[in-house]
Amino acid sequence: MFDVALVGAGRIGRIHAANVAANPRLRLAYVVDPMADAAAALAAEHGAQVSTLDQALADPAVRGVIVASSTDTHLDFSMAAARAGKAVFCEKPLDQDLARARAAEQDFAALGVPMLLAFNRRFDVNFATLQARLAGGEMGALETLHIISHDPAPPPVDYVKVSGGIFKDMVIHDFDMARWLLGEDVTEVFAASAVLIDPAIGAAGDADTAKTILRTASGRLCVISSSRRSGYGYDQRIEAYCANGMLRAQNQLESTVERWGEGGASADRFQNFFLDRYAVAYAREIAHFADVIDGAAPLIGYRDGVAALALAEAAAQSARDGAVVRL
Amino acid sequence: MFDVALVGAGRIGRIHAANVAANPRLRLAYVVDPMADAAAALAAEHGAQVSTLDQALADPAVRGVIVASSTDTHLDFSMAAARAGKAVFCEKPLDQDLARARAAEQDFAALGVPMLLAFNRRFDVNFATLQARLAGGEMGALETLHIISHDPAPPPVDYVKVSGGIFKDMVIHDFDMARWLLGEDVTEVFAASAVLIDPAIGAAGDADTAKTILRTASGRLCVISSSRRSGYGYDQRIEAYCANGMLRAQNQLESTVERWGEGGASADRFQNFFLDRYAVAYAREIAHFADVIDGAAPLIGYRDGVAALALAEAAAQSARDGAVVRL
Amino acid sequence: MFDVALVGAGRIGRIHAANVAANPRLRLAYVVDPMADAAAALAAEHGAQVSTLDQALADPAVRGVIVASSTDTHLDFSMAAARAGKAVFCEKPLDQDLARARAAEQDFAALGVPMLLAFNRRFDVNFATLQARLAGGEMGALETLHIISHDPAPPPVDYVKVSGGIFKDMVIHDFDMARWLLGEDVTEVFAASAVLIDPAIGAAGDADTAKTILRTASGRLCVISSSRRSGYGYDQRIEAYCANGMLRAQNQLESTVERWGEGGASADRFQNFFLDRYAVAYAREIAHFADVIDGAAPLIGYRDGVAALALAEAAAQSARDGAVVRL
Amino acid sequence: MFDVALVGAGRIGRIHAANVAANPRLRLAYVVDPMADAAAALAAEHGAQVSTLDQALADPAVRGVIVASSTDTHLDFSMAAARAGKAVFCEKPLDQDLARARAAEQDFAALGVPMLLAFNRRFDVNFATLQARLAGGEMGALETLHIISHDPAPPPVDYVKVSGGIFKDMVIHDFDMARWLLGEDVTEVFAASAVLIDPAIGAAGDADTAKTILRTASGRLCVISSSRRSGYGYDQRIEAYCANGMLRAQNQLESTVERWGEGGASADRFQNFFLDRYAVAYAREIAHFADVIDGAAPLIGYRDGVAALALAEAAAQSARDGAVVRL
Repeated sequence: MFDVALVGAGRIGRIHAANVAANPRLRLAYVVDPMADAAAALAAEHGAQVSTLDQALADPAVRGVIVASSTDTHLDFSMAAARAGKAVFCEKPLDQDLARARAAEQDFAALGVPMLLAFNRRFDVNFATLQARLAGGEMGALETLHIISHDPAPPPVDYVKVSGGIFKDMVIHDFDMARWLLGEDVTEVFAASAVLIDPAIGAAGDADTAKTILRTASGRLCVISSSRRSGYGYDQRIEAYCANGMLRAQNQLESTVERWGEGGASADRFQNFFLDRYAVAYAREIAHFADVIDGAAPLIGYRDGVAALALAEAAAQSARDGAVVRL
Repeated sequence: MFDVALVGAGRIGRIHAANVAANPRLRLAYVVDPMADAAAALAAEHGAQVSTLDQALADPAVRGVIVASSTDTHLDFSMAAARAGKAVFCEKPLDQDLARARAAEQDFAALGVPMLLAFNRRFDVNFATLQARLAGGEMGALETLHIISHDPAPPPVDYVKVSGGIFKDMVIHDFDMARWLLGEDVTEVFAASAVLIDPAIGAAGDADTAKTILRTASGRLCVISSSRRSGYGYDQRIEAYCANGMLRAQNQLESTVERWGEGGASADRFQNFFLDRYAVAYAREIAHFADVIDGAAPLIGYRDGVAALALAEAAAQSARDGAVVRL
Repeated sequence: MFDVALVGAGRIGRIHAANVAANPRLRLAYVVDPMADAAAALAAEHGAQVSTLDQALADPAVRGVIVASSTDTHLDFSMAAARAGKAVFCEKPLDQDLARARAAEQDFAALGVPMLLAFNRRFDVNFATLQARLAGGEMGALETLHIISHDPAPPPVDYVKVSGGIFKDMVIHDFDMARWLLGEDVTEVFAASAVLIDPAIGAAGDADTAKTILRTASGRLCVISSSRRSGYGYDQRIEAYCANGMLRAQNQLESTVERWGEGGASADRFQNFFLDRYAVAYAREIAHFADVIDGAAPLIGYRDGVAALALAEAAAQSARDGAVVRL
Repeated sequence: MFDVALVGAGRIGRIHAANVAANPRLRLAYVVDPMADAAAALAAEHGAQVSTLDQALADPAVRGVIVASSTDTHLDFSMAAARAGKAVFCEKPLDQDLARARAAEQDFAALGVPMLLAFNRRFDVNFATLQARLAGGEMGALETLHIISHDPAPPPVDYVKVSGGIFKDMVIHDFDMARWLLGEDVTEVFAASAVLIDPAIGAAGDADTAKTILRTASGRLCVISSSRRSGYGYDQRIEAYCANGMLRAQNQLESTVERWGEGGASADRFQNFFLDRYAVAYAREIAHFADVIDGAAPLIGYRDGVAALALAEAAAQSARDGAVVRL
């Protein structure tokens, strides 16, 4: 059983804390958060101690650190944990500033500790099954990829303002997914964005809708459809077109109950909240972190965080300029 | 091109007339109906002549007769056509009286003309595909069978009163379907019926709902669910449980359009009217009649009409007595 | 937090132990099993003590007892726990002998402790959603009910021999489900059974396939289809036909991944193992036991165990005699 | 009943001839084709006469002309028919040369006869239902649109060489569909194309795969996915994302038969041949031509042919240049 420290007692930190508590291989030893009340409450719930980051890093029993604090601290806290020799679990995104993330890459690597960069969707059973079957080649070579990623409803505009923009905040998940499924680097990005949902998002300088086309080194194409609002819950589907047919992952429903009435047959609602939709993925992600502490190579690391960020910057630039950006 | 005569210019007669007209191998030569106006209108629409049955049968160019008159005349008109050496297309049911239908069986057979008994569902592409795949054995031996057959809405009580009862009027289609798919004789029938939809149907001495269990000679089981009203259109589905899995036929939709909204995803309406649901089946049935005139063995004949009627009588008796009826 | 004792360290006992351990409101205090090794291993895994039943019952801190031992001991251990004033969680079936279960009913009731009879399917999210929506009346009054309950593959014949027969061992779940959804007593049972899958099951005096029709006090009908083998995983579906349409619960899939190939579109496999299919239901069932210890009325109790057993006996008799059994 | 002349006795001409013959409001009077045998055979099949175009146009009984000859003759024959005062049914595309089609637009309009430009997909029941429901606004304003249009298998390279390229030959259908559903003009086009299926198509200077993004005057976005090969039949789906949810049209299956086996549930094959997939659409298109002859405004006309061609040219240019083309 490995002791871990959690930095950040906010919404996502509480999810990770609960999953650590439920995992027989991990023990939540410390909770670190400048909000003393939040830290105390979360620590109490799981029998952990409140501490500073330094105190937690100084404890040799701590084998891993979960960085779930605000985005601007991800990189610094990850470096601090790595310098202390702890395995790092870093929430996405690695940073909002590509240059800064790139600048630190060598330093981090030199410390020789693993980082699990927490793109939670890779741990979803549906997407993981899709990836495994694509990699297994059952439908022949992958040729093109479609990713639909529409949120149930737009976030508050105050969040949008500090989010880094739709590409860094939201589409970054899909850039990582595209890289994982395509299994190769992207060389060209074209993005068209629009404000179709909430004019206030436009007034804040961001878009709420985007369609992005990626081209890979070997010439394959990927389309990503992004929307801040679906109107019917979490719409996250992938279609992978291969030489001999197609594999795809569909949305998850709240139950298998159907209603057949005058208007036809209808299924139950799509899952509507990311903590429901990805509840199992978050638990699997923490289980993978136990593997990483135990010596396994992380499924996703620092380099993937940089690569997704680079795609997000390229897409934002393409959307601004109306031209292809070559990487 | 074969000339045919149509006896009966009612709703189903008009369907058959249109399908004869559209079939390049058949020509509608005569329309026979005691309602002179109906006969004249239908004949005019398709360039046919109004005639008596005797006149039509006397014409040596007429190779087949479609009997689509009222049920009590099916048997007499079929015999008359057969005596004149014409191939017979007889609407279901053969008769409402099992003893009478059995009594005439030898006489009809002795005349040496084919009868196509018009259980239209055998010509539905979905059910025909199911039957072919079951017979082909792709899932191993058929073990048990479920037939759902729920009408969109109950008929008028005046119709119910002369219909012969739910088993002879409605479930008879499913008895024929069961015999076709099972490919063997039924030896035991148990039926439970109820009045759950329209008390007036109960007051008329009939039921509006029934669940029937058949057992075949080799011991296999079949369940038929019958309802005079679904509330969501034509519900006619079949599930065939086999040694290695299941094959089933589902309902037909008005279009492939789906709606994804707050309440979830919903498909378009199920087809709601038998003339829509079975439009293609009626045309294929008439095309098969052209084959029969041309010498092909009918897919369904007199014996099948008797067998379905026998099952209907047995089921009605079982429902009355609350006991298994052995055939 | 309530202490509970577990009687029975077999497969289902281990499931309950893990769910108790994961539930923040319960603590596994004692494990009781004549197989000392099994008891010790399970107790060690969850930090519990091995004890005798008497020792566990003597501990006033123990508030509930989970009876997951062999079927013939369910009733005795439940009575013992009740005499000690502990809330009882009793695995299904209550007993294999209806007369015996009925004989003890008053005695149990007199002890004034609650029993949660563990028909796990009532805690499945899909079936619970179906029940709630039926009870809510969104489609009008329920009229007839179809329950499909086909296991992935038949059990070993040695198990079949001591199972009590298909109706008491397997269909009993569906009798309980039917009673729950119909919301009223069943007055007539007809069952047709057959040996279509494994002749050895027939040689052991049991059937592997059955179709049962129930009629309720108010005249509604229910069909239950039972098979020891589907060939495609757990097939447990329900269709509830109501005045204005139908509600149904479908099977659960291993993932949402689909394959579109030359042969058409195919979904992922159906869940194949009851511990996967009902993993969440077992956890919810234990959570409900915490509520029951805390004073809530059990969703299912002694009376429901007796009623399901009575239906199982009636169905077995009907299948033997080929006649309706009236209750 | 209106007499029509057919120019072109090839594959699509024969389809139109059969639909004219089956339509009670139209009569096939003349068949015109330089291949005398093909013309004679088709004329004989439907009781029409073989003639030259001039002869057919000289017959005052002829009210409409169906131009189904080779693409390079569409415009000339349409003009000739229009000069003779006949209603024109013109197969897609209007021409391969945008400048030429534009140059003739005023001349054609001046002749005052209607042209039905035969984009057959507008007459498909599924797409027409989608369009009607979008226009009806049941899900709120349309915001973005996804069109999947993948053919079952690539055409012969010899065909590709004279096809005008993937955008003019294949995607042109989708440009028309996009314009129809969006209900407004497109102002920007970006297309990425690739050779991923057949290198011979690349060697012929064409692509076999493309992803296109359109932006409309009001700022809405549309993605079109194009592939010369799906591996699983005709894949033609549309998803229309609206303010309150999504409407979509799905593929058509060969039957409703499903197979549930060890690998999961699979549906029947998707329809694989355009003459099956669009059989009903072709008949409805001819029926609409009867309406047009009778005075109705054509659903699609000359202007739509020009607009689709303009989009095809813009997309081809964008794919070549890797830059957005503004219209």
